[in-house]
Amino acid sequence: MTKHIIFYFDFISAYSYLAWVQFPKLLEETKASMEAIPVFLAGMLHACGQKGPAEIPSKRNYCFKDILMCAAECGVPIEGPPSHPFNPLLALRMCTALSDENQKQKLIHKMFTACWSEGKNIADANILSQLANECGLDGQLLLQKAQESTIKEQLKKNTEAALKKGVFGVPTFLVNGELFWGNDRLHFLKRFLKEGKPLYDIAKASELLSRPQR
Amino acid sequence: MTKHIIFYFDFISAYSYLAWVQFPKLLEETKASMEAIPVFLAGMLHACGQKGPAEIPSKRNYCFKDILMCAAECGVPIEGPPSHPFNPLLALRMCTALSDENQKQKLIHKMFTACWSEGKNIADANILSQLANECGLDGQLLLQKAQESTIKEQLKKNTEAALKKGVFGVPTFLVNGELFWGNDRLHFLKRFLKEGKPLYDIAKASELLSRPQR
Repeated sequence: MTKHIIFYFDFISAYSYLAWVQFPKLLEETKASMEAIPVFLAGMLHACGQKGPAEIPSKRNYCFKDILMCAAECGVPIEGPPSHPFNPLLALRMCTALSDENQKQKLIHKMFTACWSEGKNIADANILSQLANECGLDGQLLLQKAQESTIKEQLKKNTEAALKKGVFGVPTFLVNGELFWGNDRLHFLKRFLKEGKPLYDIAKASELLSRPQR
Repeated sequence: MTKHIIFYFDFISAYSYLAWVQFPKLLEETKASMEAIPVFLAGMLHACGQKGPAEIPSKRNYCFKDILMCAAECGVPIEGPPSHPFNPLLALRMCTALSDENQKQKLIHKMFTACWSEGKNIADANILSQLANECGLDGQLLLQKAQESTIKEQLKKNTEAALKKGVFGVPTFLVNGELFWGNDRLHFLKRFLKEGKPLYDIAKASELLSRPQR
Protein backbone atom coordinates (compact mmCIF):
# COMPACT_ATOMS: atom_id res chain seq x y z
CA MET A 1 0.00 0.00 0.00
CA THR A 2 1.24 3.50 -0.84
CA LYS A 3 1.23 5.44 2.39
CA HIS A 4 0.51 8.75 0.76
CA ILE A 5 -2.20 10.93 2.27
CA ILE A 6 -4.04 13.64 0.35
CA PHE A 7 -5.25 16.21 2.86
CA TYR A 8 -8.16 18.35 1.62
CA PHE A 9 -8.73 21.48 3.68
CA ASP A 10 -10.04 25.04 3.79
CA PHE A 11 -8.78 27.71 6.21
CA ILE A 12 -12.41 28.54 7.09
CA SER A 13 -12.59 25.22 8.93
CA ALA A 14 -11.18 25.11 12.46
CA TYR A 15 -11.52 21.33 12.32
CA SER A 16 -9.10 21.36 9.37
CA TYR A 17 -6.62 23.24 11.55
CA LEU A 18 -7.09 20.76 14.38
CA ALA A 19 -6.29 17.95 11.96
CA TRP A 20 -3.33 19.88 10.52
CA VAL A 21 -1.60 20.27 13.89
CA GLN A 22 -1.84 16.53 14.52
CA PHE A 23 -0.13 15.57 11.26
CA PRO A 24 3.55 15.72 12.25
CA LYS A 25 3.06 13.07 14.95
CA LEU A 26 0.80 10.95 12.74
CA LEU A 27 3.25 10.99 9.83
CA GLU A 28 6.12 10.07 12.10
CA GLU A 29 4.21 7.19 13.66
CA THR A 30 2.93 5.79 10.39
CA LYS A 31 5.91 6.61 8.13
CA ALA A 32 3.40 8.09 5.70
CA SER A 33 3.77 11.12 3.44
CA MET A 34 1.23 13.90 3.00
CA GLU A 35 0.18 16.27 0.26
CA ALA A 36 -2.06 19.22 1.13
CA ILE A 37 -4.69 20.32 -1.37
CA PRO A 38 -6.58 23.55 -0.66
CA VAL A 39 -10.26 23.36 -1.66
CA PHE A 40 -13.06 25.91 -1.42
CA LEU A 41 -15.47 24.51 1.17
CA ALA A 42 -18.32 26.88 0.28
CA GLY A 43 -18.17 25.69 -3.34
CA MET A 44 -18.08 22.09 -2.19
CA LEU A 45 -21.10 22.53 0.08
CA HIS A 46 -22.97 24.34 -2.68
CA ALA A 47 -22.29 21.47 -5.10
CA CYS A 48 -23.72 19.03 -2.51
CA GLY A 49 -26.73 21.28 -1.82
CA GLN A 50 -25.58 21.44 1.77
CA LYS A 51 -25.27 24.22 4.35
CA GLY A 52 -22.07 24.81 6.30
CA PRO A 53 -22.11 24.55 10.12
CA ALA A 54 -21.74 28.34 10.37
CA GLU A 55 -24.94 28.85 8.34
CA ILE A 56 -27.19 27.09 10.85
CA PRO A 57 -27.38 29.29 13.98
CA SER A 58 -27.74 26.46 16.51
CA LYS A 59 -24.97 24.46 14.84
CA ARG A 60 -22.70 27.51 14.74
CA ASN A 61 -23.31 28.00 18.48
CA TYR A 62 -22.51 24.39 19.18
CA CYS A 63 -19.50 24.11 16.89
CA PHE A 64 -17.54 26.98 18.40
CA LYS A 65 -17.84 25.31 21.81
CA ASP A 66 -16.96 21.94 20.32
CA ILE A 67 -13.92 23.46 18.58
CA LEU A 68 -12.70 24.85 21.93
CA MET A 69 -13.17 21.41 23.51
CA CYS A 70 -11.37 19.59 20.67
CA ALA A 71 -8.56 22.17 20.65
CA ALA A 72 -8.06 21.88 24.41
CA GLU A 73 -7.92 18.11 23.98
CA CYS A 74 -4.98 18.38 21.58
CA GLY A 75 -3.34 21.32 23.35
CA VAL A 76 -3.88 23.95 20.65
CA PRO A 77 -4.60 27.56 21.64
CA ILE A 78 -7.64 29.06 19.89
CA GLU A 79 -7.91 32.78 19.45
CA GLY A 80 -10.07 32.57 16.30
CA PRO A 81 -10.38 34.93 13.34
CA PRO A 82 -11.80 38.46 13.85
CA SER A 83 -14.87 37.43 11.85
CA HIS A 84 -16.31 34.06 10.90
CA PRO A 85 -17.23 33.04 8.29
CA PHE A 86 -14.66 35.06 6.35
CA ASN A 87 -13.57 34.94 2.71
CA PRO A 88 -10.73 32.39 2.49
CA LEU A 89 -10.30 32.57 -1.30
CA LEU A 90 -7.18 34.72 -1.44
CA ALA A 91 -5.39 32.63 1.19
CA LEU A 92 -6.41 29.40 -0.58
CA ARG A 93 -5.27 30.76 -3.95
CA MET A 94 -1.88 31.85 -2.61
CA CYS A 95 -1.28 28.30 -1.40
CA THR A 96 -2.58 26.88 -4.68
CA ALA A 97 -0.07 29.08 -6.53
CA LEU A 98 2.89 27.35 -4.87
CA SER A 99 4.00 24.23 -6.72
CA ASP A 100 6.74 23.27 -4.28
CA GLU A 101 5.04 21.08 -1.65
CA ASN A 102 7.41 22.08 1.18
CA GLN A 103 6.96 25.79 0.53
CA LYS A 104 3.20 25.27 0.25
CA GLN A 105 2.97 23.42 3.57
CA LYS A 106 5.11 26.05 5.30
CA LEU A 107 2.71 28.75 4.12
CA ILE A 108 -0.36 26.67 5.03
CA HIS A 109 1.00 26.23 8.53
CA LYS A 110 1.69 29.95 8.81
CA MET A 111 -1.81 30.90 7.65
CA PHE A 112 -3.64 28.30 9.73
CA THR A 113 -1.77 29.35 12.88
CA ALA A 114 -2.24 33.07 12.17
CA CYS A 115 -5.98 32.60 11.68
CA TRP A 116 -6.93 30.19 14.44
CA SER A 117 -4.26 30.50 17.13
CA GLU A 118 -3.21 34.13 16.69
CA GLY A 119 -6.48 35.82 15.76
CA LYS A 120 -5.24 37.40 12.52
CA ASN A 121 -7.48 38.31 9.61
CA ILE A 122 -6.38 36.08 6.75
CA ALA A 123 -8.97 37.60 4.44
CA ASP A 124 -6.71 40.71 4.37
CA ALA A 125 -4.23 40.89 1.48
CA ASN A 126 -1.65 42.86 3.47
CA ILE A 127 -1.63 40.34 6.28
CA LEU A 128 -1.37 37.47 3.80
CA SER A 129 1.52 39.11 2.01
CA GLN A 130 3.30 39.61 5.35
CA LEU A 131 2.76 35.96 6.32
CA ALA A 132 4.23 34.84 3.00
CA ASN A 133 7.25 37.11 3.56
CA GLU A 134 7.76 35.52 6.96
CA CYS A 135 7.96 32.15 5.16
CA GLY A 136 10.80 33.47 3.02
CA LEU A 137 8.55 33.99 0.00
CA ASP A 138 7.88 37.14 -1.98
CA GLY A 139 4.47 38.09 -0.58
CA GLN A 140 3.59 40.74 -3.17
CA LEU A 141 4.52 38.48 -6.06
CA LEU A 142 2.53 35.60 -4.61
CA LEU A 143 -0.50 37.86 -4.08
CA GLN A 144 -0.33 38.87 -7.72
CA LYS A 145 0.00 35.28 -8.88
CA ALA A 146 -2.94 34.25 -6.67
CA GLN A 147 -5.15 36.60 -8.62
CA GLU A 148 -4.32 35.21 -12.05
CA SER A 149 -7.13 33.33 -13.74
CA THR A 150 -5.08 30.12 -14.07
CA ILE A 151 -4.69 29.95 -10.28
CA LYS A 152 -8.36 30.77 -9.65
CA GLU A 153 -9.19 28.03 -12.14
CA GLN A 154 -6.78 25.61 -10.46
CA LEU A 155 -8.49 25.98 -7.06
CA LYS A 156 -11.85 25.39 -8.73
CA LYS A 157 -10.48 22.30 -10.49
CA ASN A 158 -9.00 20.95 -7.26
CA THR A 159 -12.37 21.38 -5.54
CA GLU A 160 -14.20 19.68 -8.40
CA ALA A 161 -11.69 16.83 -8.50
CA ALA A 162 -12.14 16.29 -4.76
CA LEU A 163 -15.93 16.17 -5.19
CA LYS A 164 -15.49 13.56 -7.92
CA LYS A 165 -13.46 11.45 -5.51
CA GLY A 166 -16.37 11.48 -3.03
CA VAL A 167 -15.21 14.33 -0.80
CA PHE A 168 -18.13 16.36 0.65
CA GLY A 169 -16.49 18.34 3.46
CA VAL A 170 -13.22 19.21 5.15
CA PRO A 171 -10.92 18.08 6.53
CA THR A 172 -10.86 14.93 4.42
CA PHE A 173 -7.96 12.52 4.17
CA LEU A 174 -7.65 10.28 1.11
CA VAL A 175 -5.31 7.30 1.10
CA ASN A 176 -5.38 4.47 -1.41
CA GLY A 177 -8.97 5.25 -2.39
CA GLU A 178 -10.21 5.33 1.22
CA LEU A 179 -11.71 8.55 2.60
CA PHE A 180 -11.65 9.68 6.22
CA TRP A 181 -13.64 12.79 7.12
CA GLY A 182 -13.06 14.99 10.15
CA ASN A 183 -10.28 15.58 12.65
CA ASP A 184 -12.16 13.10 14.85
CA ARG A 185 -11.39 10.31 12.36
CA LEU A 186 -7.60 10.61 12.50
CA HIS A 187 -7.51 7.47 14.66
CA PHE A 188 -9.15 5.54 11.81
CA LEU A 189 -6.70 7.02 9.29
CA LYS A 190 -3.82 5.96 11.55
CA ARG A 191 -5.16 2.43 11.96
CA PHE A 192 -5.71 2.13 8.21
CA LEU A 193 -2.11 3.19 7.52
CA LYS A 194 -0.80 0.69 10.07
CA GLU A 195 -3.05 -2.25 9.15
CA GLY A 196 -2.92 -1.67 5.40
CA LYS A 197 -6.51 -2.74 4.81
CA PRO A 198 -9.96 -1.15 5.20
CA LEU A 199 -11.33 -1.17 8.74
CA TYR A 200 -14.76 -2.33 7.55
CA ASP A 201 -16.12 -5.31 5.67
CA ILE A 202 -15.98 -4.17 2.02
CA ALA A 203 -18.62 -6.67 0.83
CA LYS A 204 -20.95 -5.70 3.68
CA ALA A 205 -20.58 -1.99 2.91
CA SER A 206 -21.33 -2.45 -0.75
CA GLU A 207 -24.32 -4.69 0.01
CA LEU A 208 -25.70 -2.10 2.47
CA LEU A 209 -25.23 0.66 -0.10
CA SER A 210 -27.06 -1.33 -2.76
CA ARG A 211 -30.26 -1.65 -0.72
CA PRO A 212 -33.28 0.43 -1.71
CA GLN A 213 -33.56 3.99 -0.49
CA ARG A 214 -37.13 3.82 0.73
CA MET B 1 -24.92 19.51 39.09
CA THR B 2 -27.89 17.32 38.20
CA LYS B 3 -26.49 14.32 36.40
CA HIS B 4 -29.54 13.81 34.24
CA ILE B 5 -29.01 13.25 30.53
CA ILE B 6 -31.66 13.89 27.92
CA PHE B 7 -30.94 11.68 24.94
CA TYR B 8 -32.50 12.87 21.67
CA PHE B 9 -32.57 10.22 18.96
CA ASP B 10 -34.24 8.90 15.82
CA PHE B 11 -34.17 5.23 14.75
CA ILE B 12 -33.14 6.34 11.25
CA SER B 13 -29.74 7.25 12.67
CA ALA B 14 -27.22 4.44 13.09
CA TYR B 15 -25.06 6.87 15.05
CA SER B 16 -27.94 7.17 17.55
CA TYR B 17 -27.88 3.39 17.94
CA LEU B 18 -24.11 3.41 18.45
CA ALA B 19 -24.55 5.97 21.22
CA TRP B 20 -27.45 4.02 22.71
CA VAL B 21 -25.44 0.80 23.13
CA GLN B 22 -22.72 2.69 25.00
CA PHE B 23 -25.09 4.16 27.59
CA PRO B 24 -25.24 1.38 30.17
CA LYS B 25 -21.47 1.58 30.77
CA LEU B 26 -21.46 5.39 30.70
CA LEU B 27 -24.33 5.65 33.19
CA GLU B 28 -22.66 3.17 35.52
CA GLU B 29 -19.34 5.01 35.38
CA THR B 30 -20.80 8.47 35.88
CA LYS B 31 -23.70 7.59 38.21
CA ALA B 32 -25.91 9.62 35.86
CA SER B 33 -29.53 8.99 34.85
CA MET B 34 -30.91 9.15 31.35
CA GLU B 35 -34.22 10.00 29.70
CA ALA B 36 -34.74 9.13 26.04
CA ILE B 37 -36.76 11.49 23.86
CA PRO B 38 -37.64 10.33 20.33
CA VAL B 39 -37.49 13.15 17.77
CA PHE B 40 -38.16 13.18 14.04
CA LEU B 41 -34.77 13.87 12.43
CA ALA B 42 -36.21 14.67 8.98
CA GLY B 43 -38.39 17.38 10.55
CA MET B 44 -35.44 18.71 12.49
CA LEU B 45 -33.23 18.89 9.39
CA HIS B 46 -36.01 20.55 7.44
CA ALA B 47 -36.40 23.19 10.15
CA CYS B 48 -32.65 23.88 9.92
CA GLY B 49 -32.73 23.95 6.10
CA GLN B 50 -30.27 21.09 6.17
CA LYS B 51 -29.92 17.84 4.24
CA GLY B 52 -29.46 14.51 6.00
CA PRO B 53 -26.31 12.45 5.33
CA ALA B 54 -28.38 9.94 3.35
CA GLU B 55 -29.54 12.69 0.96
CA ILE B 56 -26.05 13.53 -0.30
CA PRO B 57 -24.83 10.55 -2.37
CA SER B 58 -21.12 10.89 -1.52
CA LYS B 59 -21.89 11.41 2.17
CA ARG B 60 -24.23 8.41 2.18
CA ASN B 61 -21.46 6.29 0.64
CA TYR B 62 -19.00 7.48 3.22
CA CYS B 63 -21.28 7.23 6.23
CA PHE B 64 -22.21 3.59 5.77
CA LYS B 65 -18.51 2.71 5.81
CA ASP B 66 -17.93 4.99 8.77
CA ILE B 67 -20.84 3.39 10.63
CA LEU B 68 -19.30 -0.06 10.07
CA MET B 69 -15.96 1.23 11.40
CA CYS B 70 -17.53 2.87 14.46
CA ALA B 71 -19.67 -0.20 15.15
CA ALA B 72 -16.67 -2.52 14.93
CA GLU B 73 -14.85 -0.23 17.35
CA CYS B 74 -17.55 -0.66 19.98
CA GLY B 75 -18.23 -4.31 19.19
CA VAL B 76 -21.75 -3.92 17.79
CA PRO B 77 -22.90 -6.13 14.91
CA ILE B 78 -24.47 -4.19 12.03
CA GLU B 79 -26.93 -5.90 9.73
CA GLY B 80 -28.77 -2.70 8.80
CA PRO B 81 -32.39 -2.13 7.79
CA PRO B 82 -33.72 -3.59 4.51
CA SER B 83 -33.99 -0.07 3.12
CA HIS B 84 -32.50 3.23 4.18
CA PRO B 85 -33.71 5.86 4.59
CA PHE B 86 -36.99 4.37 5.82
CA ASN B 87 -40.01 5.94 7.49
CA PRO B 88 -39.35 5.87 11.26
CA LEU B 89 -42.53 7.73 12.29
CA LEU B 90 -44.60 4.79 13.49
CA ALA B 91 -41.71 3.41 15.57
CA LEU B 92 -41.00 6.86 17.04
CA ARG B 93 -44.68 7.41 17.82
CA MET B 94 -45.02 4.03 19.57
CA CYS B 95 -42.15 5.01 21.87
CA THR B 96 -43.63 8.46 22.37
CA ALA B 97 -46.91 6.85 23.43
CA LEU B 98 -45.26 5.15 26.42
CA SER B 99 -45.14 7.35 29.49
CA ASP B 100 -43.29 4.88 31.68
CA GLU B 101 -39.57 5.58 31.09
CA ASN B 102 -38.48 1.99 31.78
CA GLN B 103 -41.03 0.53 29.39
CA LYS B 104 -40.10 3.16 26.81
CA GLN B 105 -36.39 2.40 27.02
CA LYS B 106 -37.04 -1.32 26.80
CA LEU B 107 -38.97 -0.79 23.58
CA ILE B 108 -36.37 1.65 22.19
CA HIS B 109 -33.67 -0.94 22.80
CA LYS B 110 -35.77 -3.63 21.10
CA MET B 111 -36.45 -1.45 18.05
CA PHE B 112 -32.89 -0.13 17.70
CA THR B 113 -31.47 -3.66 17.91
CA ALA B 114 -34.06 -5.08 15.52
CA CYS B 115 -33.33 -2.38 12.96
CA TRP B 116 -29.55 -2.06 13.05
CA SER B 117 -28.23 -5.35 14.40
CA GLU B 118 -30.92 -7.78 13.20
CA GLY B 119 -31.88 -6.29 9.84
CA LYS B 120 -35.60 -6.02 10.56
CA ASN B 121 -37.91 -3.54 8.86
CA ILE B 122 -39.12 -1.24 11.63
CA ALA B 123 -41.26 0.72 9.18
CA ASP B 124 -43.59 -2.31 9.15
CA ALA B 125 -46.53 -2.15 11.59
CA ASN B 126 -46.68 -5.93 12.05
CA ILE B 127 -43.03 -6.15 12.96
CA LEU B 128 -43.37 -3.20 15.35
CA SER B 129 -46.38 -4.77 17.04
CA GLN B 130 -44.45 -8.04 17.43
CA LEU B 131 -41.45 -6.22 18.95
CA ALA B 132 -43.74 -4.48 21.44
CA ASN B 133 -45.29 -7.85 22.37
CA GLU B 134 -41.81 -9.23 23.00
CA CYS B 135 -41.31 -6.38 25.50
CA GLY B 136 -44.40 -7.52 27.40
CA LEU B 137 -46.54 -4.73 25.95
CA ASP B 138 -49.80 -4.99 23.99
CA GLY B 139 -48.47 -4.38 20.47
CA GLN B 140 -51.83 -3.87 18.79
CA LEU B 141 -53.02 -1.41 21.43
CA LEU B 142 -49.75 0.53 21.26
CA LEU B 143 -49.97 0.68 17.45
CA GLN B 144 -53.47 2.14 17.74
CA LYS B 145 -52.36 4.67 20.33
CA ALA B 146 -49.38 5.66 18.19
CA GLN B 147 -51.78 6.73 15.47
CA GLU B 148 -53.84 9.04 17.66
CA SER B 149 -53.46 12.72 16.90
CA THR B 150 -52.30 13.56 20.44
CA ILE B 151 -49.33 11.22 20.06
CA LYS B 152 -48.49 12.52 16.59
CA GLU B 153 -48.66 16.01 18.05
CA GLN B 154 -46.48 15.00 21.01
CA LEU B 155 -43.65 13.80 18.75
CA LYS B 156 -43.85 17.05 16.80
CA LYS B 157 -43.76 19.06 20.04
CA ASN B 158 -40.77 17.08 21.32
CA THR B 159 -38.93 17.77 18.08
CA GLU B 160 -39.76 21.48 18.23
CA ALA B 161 -38.75 21.71 21.88
CA ALA B 162 -35.41 20.07 21.07
CA LEU B 163 -34.83 22.58 18.25
CA LYS B 164 -35.56 25.41 20.69
CA LYS B 165 -32.88 24.03 23.01
CA GLY B 166 -30.32 24.24 20.20
CA VAL B 167 -30.50 20.64 18.98
CA PHE B 168 -29.87 20.33 15.21
CA GLY B 169 -29.17 16.62 14.75
CA VAL B 170 -29.08 13.23 16.45
CA PRO B 171 -27.86 11.74 18.64
CA THR B 172 -27.70 14.74 20.96
CA PHE B 173 -27.15 14.59 24.70
CA LEU B 174 -28.33 17.45 26.88
CA VAL B 175 -27.13 17.80 30.47
CA ASN B 176 -27.44 20.93 32.60
CA GLY B 177 -27.86 23.12 29.51
CA GLU B 178 -24.80 21.69 27.74
CA LEU B 179 -25.25 19.93 24.41
CA PHE B 180 -23.09 17.14 23.03
CA TRP B 181 -23.73 15.98 19.47
CA GLY B 182 -22.74 12.63 18.02
CA ASN B 183 -21.75 9.23 19.32
CA ASP B 184 -18.18 10.45 18.84
CA ARG B 185 -18.68 13.04 21.58
CA LEU B 186 -19.58 10.58 24.35
CA HIS B 187 -16.09 11.07 25.82
CA PHE B 188 -16.85 14.79 26.25
CA LEU B 189 -20.22 13.98 27.84
CA LYS B 190 -18.49 11.60 30.24
CA ARG B 191 -15.83 14.14 31.17
CA PHE B 192 -18.47 16.82 31.70
CA LEU B 193 -20.43 14.54 34.03
CA LYS B 194 -17.28 13.72 35.99
CA GLU B 195 -15.79 17.23 36.15
CA GLY B 196 -19.10 19.02 36.69
CA LYS B 197 -18.14 22.06 34.63
CA PRO B 198 -17.99 22.91 30.91
CA LEU B 199 -14.89 21.64 29.10
CA TYR B 200 -14.39 24.98 27.34
CA ASP B 201 -13.84 28.57 28.42
CA ILE B 202 -17.38 29.98 28.60
CA ALA B 203 -16.28 33.62 28.24
CA LYS B 204 -14.08 32.75 25.26
CA ALA B 205 -16.93 30.87 23.54
CA SER B 206 -19.37 33.71 23.98
CA GLU B 207 -16.80 36.26 22.79
CA LEU B 208 -16.07 34.16 19.69
CA LEU B 209 -19.78 33.83 18.97
CA SER B 210 -20.32 37.57 19.27
CA ARG B 211 -17.81 38.40 16.51
CA PRO B 212 -19.13 39.56 13.13
CA GLN B 213 -20.16 36.98 10.57
CA ARG B 214 -18.21 38.37 7.60
